[in-house]
Amino acid sequence: MATFGDIGVAAALNILSALGFLMAFALLRLQPINGRVYFTKWYLKGARSSRTHSGTFIHKFINLNPRSYLRFLEWIPAALKMSELELIEHAGLDSAVFLRIYLIGLKIFIPITILAFFILVPVNWTNSTLKNLTSIQYSNIDHLSISNVPTGSQRFWVHLVMAYVFTFWSCYVLLKEYKIVTAMRLQFLASVKRRPDQFTVLVRNVPPDPDESVSELVEHFFLDNHPDHYLTHQVVYNANKFTKLVNEREQMENWRDYYQLKYDRNPSKRPSIKTGFWGLYGRKVDAIDFYASKIDNLSKEEATELENTIKNPKYIIPAAFVSFRTRWGAAVCAQTQQTRNPTLWLTEWAPEPRDIYWKNLSISFISIAIRKLVVAVVFFFLTFFFMIPITFVQSLANIEGIEKVVPFLKPLIEVRVIKSFIQGFLPGIVLKIFLLLLPMILMLMSKFEGFVSLSALQRRSASKYYIFLLVNVFLGSIIAGTAFEQLNSFIHQSANEIPKTIGVSIPMKATFFISYIMVDGWAGIAGEILRLKPLIFYHFKNLFLVKTEKDREKAMHPESINFATSEPQIQLYFLLGLVYAAVTPFLLPFILVFFALAYLVFRHQIINVYYQKYETAAAFWPDVHSHIITALIISQLLLLGLLSTRHAATSTPLLIPLLVLTIWFHRFCKNRYEPAFVKYPLQEATMKDRLERDREPNLDLKAYLRDAYVHPAFKKGEDDDDKVAGDEGELETIWCPPSTSHAMGHQFPATSAAHHHRPYLMLSKNSDNTS
Amino acid sequence: MATFGDIGVAAALNILSALGFLMAFALLRLQPINGRVYFTKWYLKGARSSRTHSGTFIHKFINLNPRSYLRFLEWIPAALKMSELELIEHAGLDSAVFLRIYLIGLKIFIPITILAFFILVPVNWTNSTLKNLTSIQYSNIDHLSISNVPTGSQRFWVHLVMAYVFTFWSCYVLLKEYKIVTAMRLQFLASVKRRPDQFTVLVRNVPPDPDESVSELVEHFFLDNHPDHYLTHQVVYNANKFTKLVNEREQMENWRDYYQLKYDRNPSKRPSIKTGFWGLYGRKVDAIDFYASKIDNLSKEEATELENTIKNPKYIIPAAFVSFRTRWGAAVCAQTQQTRNPTLWLTEWAPEPRDIYWKNLSISFISIAIRKLVVAVVFFFLTFFFMIPITFVQSLANIEGIEKVVPFLKPLIEVRVIKSFIQGFLPGIVLKIFLLLLPMILMLMSKFEGFVSLSALQRRSASKYYIFLLVNVFLGSIIAGTAFEQLNSFIHQSANEIPKTIGVSIPMKATFFISYIMVDGWAGIAGEILRLKPLIFYHFKNLFLVKTEKDREKAMHPESINFATSEPQIQLYFLLGLVYAAVTPFLLPFILVFFALAYLVFRHQIINVYYQKYETAAAFWPDVHSHIITALIISQLLLLGLLSTRHAATSTPLLIPLLVLTIWFHRFCKNRYEPAFVKYPLQEATMKDRLERDREPNLDLKAYLRDAYVHPAFKKGEDDDDKVAGDEGELETIWCPPSTSHAMGHQFPATSAAHHHRPYLMLSKNSDNTS
Repeated sequence: MATFGDIGVAAALNILSALGFLMAFALLRLQPINGRVYFTKWYLKGARSSRTHSGTFIHKFINLNPRSYLRFLEWIPAALKMSELELIEHAGLDSAVFLRIYLIGLKIFIPITILAFFILVPVNWTNSTLKNLTSIQYSNIDHLSISNVPTGSQRFWVHLVMAYVFTFWSCYVLLKEYKIVTAMRLQFLASVKRRPDQFTVLVRNVPPDPDESVSELVEHFFLDNHPDHYLTHQVVYNANKFTKLVNEREQMENWRDYYQLKYDRNPSKRPSIKTGFWGLYGRKVDAIDFYASKIDNLSKEEATELENTIKNPKYIIPAAFVSFRTRWGAAVCAQTQQTRNPTLWLTEWAPEPRDIYWKNLSISFISIAIRKLVVAVVFFFLTFFFMIPITFVQSLANIEGIEKVVPFLKPLIEVRVIKSFIQGFLPGIVLKIFLLLLPMILMLMSKFEGFVSLSALQRRSASKYYIFLLVNVFLGSIIAGTAFEQLNSFIHQSANEIPKTIGVSIPMKATFFISYIMVDGWAGIAGEILRLKPLIFYHFKNLFLVKTEKDREKAMHPESINFATSEPQIQLYFLLGLVYAAVTPFLLPFILVFFALAYLVFRHQIINVYYQKYETAAAFWPDVHSHIITALIISQLLLLGLLSTRHAATSTPLLIPLLVLTIWFHRFCKNRYEPAFVKYPLQEATMKDRLERDREPNLDLKAYLRDAYVHPAFKKGEDDDDKVAGDEGELETIWCPPSTSHAMGHQFPATSAAHHHRPYLMLSKNSDNTS
Repeated sequence: MATFGDIGVAAALNILSALGFLMAFALLRLQPINGRVYFTKWYLKGARSSRTHSGTFIHKFINLNPRSYLRFLEWIPAALKMSELELIEHAGLDSAVFLRIYLIGLKIFIPITILAFFILVPVNWTNSTLKNLTSIQYSNIDHLSISNVPTGSQRFWVHLVMAYVFTFWSCYVLLKEYKIVTAMRLQFLASVKRRPDQFTVLVRNVPPDPDESVSELVEHFFLDNHPDHYLTHQVVYNANKFTKLVNEREQMENWRDYYQLKYDRNPSKRPSIKTGFWGLYGRKVDAIDFYASKIDNLSKEEATELENTIKNPKYIIPAAFVSFRTRWGAAVCAQTQQTRNPTLWLTEWAPEPRDIYWKNLSISFISIAIRKLVVAVVFFFLTFFFMIPITFVQSLANIEGIEKVVPFLKPLIEVRVIKSFIQGFLPGIVLKIFLLLLPMILMLMSKFEGFVSLSALQRRSASKYYIFLLVNVFLGSIIAGTAFEQLNSFIHQSANEIPKTIGVSIPMKATFFISYIMVDGWAGIAGEILRLKPLIFYHFKNLFLVKTEKDREKAMHPESINFATSEPQIQLYFLLGLVYAAVTPFLLPFILVFFALAYLVFRHQIINVYYQKYETAAAFWPDVHSHIITALIISQLLLLGLLSTRHAATSTPLLIPLLVLTIWFHRFCKNRYEPAFVKYPLQEATMKDRLERDREPNLDLKAYLRDAYVHPAFKKGEDDDDKVAGDEGELETIWCPPSTSHAMGHQFPATSAAHHHRPYLMLSKNSDNTS
């Protein structure tokens, strides 16, 4: 058991490593050569570009301005300075609302921490239960915890009342926050300029018809049932083969550009390559001509395939994007049932074009029902039995196993260093690899379930990951043993025995979770801002692989918030905070530091680095809300179990009404606020329609929508960059890069000239973004 | 423990009493004097009337035709003869589908019984476990049950496989039935003639506005948000006081008619009454004049109150019935969210006018959320702790208690007969009274929850009653002791211990449930057809209270199917059948007899007696379906528990996939079929709109809808019988009364001349009921 001293040492170590990361970041970000790593977003938005460099060569790579080093910490105020409205315009509503999760953490836990330290700590401290007990090992942290209160004491009433206070405060914050986020979402949807998805509905499960093509069928159906509102539609092609061809051609073009550049620089010698595998052997040919002819061939193939795809009805999947004359018409179609059979002609709001997961559009209703069952079963086994295959692989990955499978490696393995490495690290590495792969596995499972938008996939994976963390990290740490062992013991325990078993162990695990928070929550978050992996990868690629400017763009590898893994990790902290609030308040300050640091770091990252690929207008909020409620309920159950083992018989049953009230609160919030995230109120649609009609009476909506929902591969096939612009861009204004960039001693201007989305700019002139 | 002999005796007794009831019914129904009790429906439909009697006086009361007595059992083929389509037209879809519940029982249990007797009974019988055990009392019925299979036997595999077979068969029947009922509902909705509720949406939670009245607000809102579809609306008045006045006036009119009749018969003497309490004392006045003046006064008061109600905005509640030009418009409005705030302007399909529960229209969203919580908590306590107040009342209702409260009764109580009656019966009677009051209590709770239609109230009460029966009758009989004691022991048992505890007792309780089925299911159902209570009440009223023809109509007291209590009772039989199918197959034939008899009896009653007040187009089916699924899941859990105590370790876990599959099947059915009971597909609406437009291009829909959703009291105020007709009548054709009535020796003709719904007939000429 750790004492204050132990925790002090651990905290010092972790604070030092966190500070080290932050310092390294503060210095590295000042170097222009790292610009694309630490200011990715500004490059992508065109407000910063490597082409506009001027000045000496060395200035391109290293910042020689000594004054900027004096202000190396100014990224902190810079990250906090941008107002929320600016942030929404700069990074989208999703990112802004994501940051609010950390803010909620602070809002919930600052008052709870203060209350706990002023009320619960004195109540716990002024007992002497633990002093009298010497048989069991208790640390002095436990003197502040509920363990120090003697069995059957009347003081447990204080804990009970505090549990009520904490719950009511959390619910109050959650309610207020749900209200704010709902208002933000509706405000965002109302103020955003015209977007194709406002007029469009995704129709799936179009029934097959022997006489009509899917396209005719869709047209007739909607002309029939939405005669006054139907405008146009876009069928969905199975473009897998075509996509492959386009990607291949792009690669070839890249090579051609590279050799062209080489030739331009050194016109005396035309570059040549070998035609064989990886250019290692074979006939020597002129490189530029070779790639030009390859591109030519591929373009022809593409054209054939494109024609084939569009002409051949086999390539058309039974789904379509149907667009309406008005937002009202689309809102109506998305919210209503179309035919008798509720498994056919399923309509829902179309995700925005960039958010679509094209592969899942053709899955039928029954198939989805079966897939959901399969995934539920697989996920259950994954959560509770994942240790079995891991153990199996670990047993294979020992010396004898490897020698058996690959006997020719035997001499190598027998080397002492390698042997000890295998024996010492391999089992741990196998587990680590599995845990690294886990989010990918969960994402695959979600994809198999048939969701049609990337954002829904993220949300679904997040929920799975949350459950996995809950079972394997939280419960798994409290009760030692695998999840399967827990499951087995729970089945054999009575319903009110389970919270007791867990509740009793909770105070003892406080020090473990404190160190977990410091390692994962402090140093880990500080490491996040350093972006060590992208930094190394970028420079590695830049040195060896980057051939053209386009390659450099790609090497930036812009990241976005990974909701599927980040959100469950934050939720773990909510869970820890709520569970320990009434038990071991000493843990709370550590949680507070996490939330504050993470808020700062992610705000900086969202402003400067992360680039959201799509915008869902905070559609994930109901998930966040219900995960926090889950944490609340778990904390109440465990407190109930803990108190009942302490013979606080009169007070314990009084926790049950709290449980009922919390569940009721959740249902209330669900009814009250969730519709705003699922449906689109008709009043809003009407208002926006009317406004638009007044402003642009002659708008050709059909032309506007024509290409909005074309498969991205087709767009790539036609033109790489110009035509896509119509369907992106919530980002109206071009923002000045943060003030630090001025202080960095180089001159690329923050003009919007670099903004190359021509058609988009044209459109934004007409849009009604002032409301 | 009962032996075959015991059960034989009990069966004989119950069969005799059932036959007695049936015989009495067969004879009583032939007497014309009982016509209004046994042919209520035909009187209400106007196809039979007491006014058209001819022949001798005696013929009016007793059937003297000896030939009709020879065919006294012909009501049985007569009840079965009417086809389902005719039944739908005669009694509505609700009644026809209600009968299908019994049919499902037969469809599920006939094959299960056959299979169980051919496979399970031999498997159980050919063991000798019970012969070797003499210590525990086993009856010879148990030789056919699973108790006879030795612990750890491989024969349990057979039970396991049969559990799978039974579940799959039940699910197959359920799926098919859901499909059929869905089709019937949609067919019914499509073929039914124009009804006001097809065009009307109920709007609740209209937000208060200082500048506009509710009526103006509603009009502006819908003109704004449904400009092309909005037609008209009807505000809802708080008409409680007015209703009271109307009822009072009706009573007075009835008395006046009575005295008028008296005077007409005996013109020599004008009747007179005393003005005091109940006409017992006070001034003597002329009765006809007295009531005439009273009626006059009340009419004036009514007029004032009516004006007051309509003029005074305080009487207008924030809800309205909004009608649309097309069914499409109404379908859209009912299925969509109107404003940002999902708790305001809540829209849903309007129930048909007769189905509305007017008092609940004004409850606000938040109030409903709180009421639901309160009712959930109260219902929990009612279910598990209802024995506590009962015991308390029982303790009061003893000799000493009564003597204390009402000491002057002491001499009476001390009489020996009365004393023993109180001691012996009173405690039982207290419990019986509670059980009789229970459906009323549950209905009150449902009303408090704020449902706006009578049918929803019925469905909600049925679900509550089902849970109550499950806990207190089923579980309560298996594990002796109160529900509270069970709850307490379950909390202290492990999760897999609970099914074991119950599972073990199941085979032992088979004989108890067999006698329960015979008493409640055989004799009880046979008693239902006799209608002893209505018979006695009717004749009692007819003798002493009936003053006018209108009174006689009232004395008939037409009953309708009481879904709230009948459905849960049927469900108990499903539960028993499914639980015992794999355990004690000997119970199954008793269940089969119940389903067959109940089907016959209720078919007869629905054709001849019950008169449904409203039509929901089988909206209750999803509830019926999910209750049967609940029974399936409970039966699987209990079998799991039972098998695990028999050390059938290898086979038992294989029941878990069955459980998962059943739950999945339920979710699948819910997604696949439930929307048909909640939403109204746009395609259907369009088709019906188009048909109507073609047939009646000049229809004045506004006039048609004007009075449809007026509070019933206002209609009563204007005219009692004529104007209501516009909003009833799925029953297009007038059916000939069943052939028995011809054989009964009197002559009232089966013409539709007696049909007095004039405006309705006029409307039906125009309607599109042929599709």
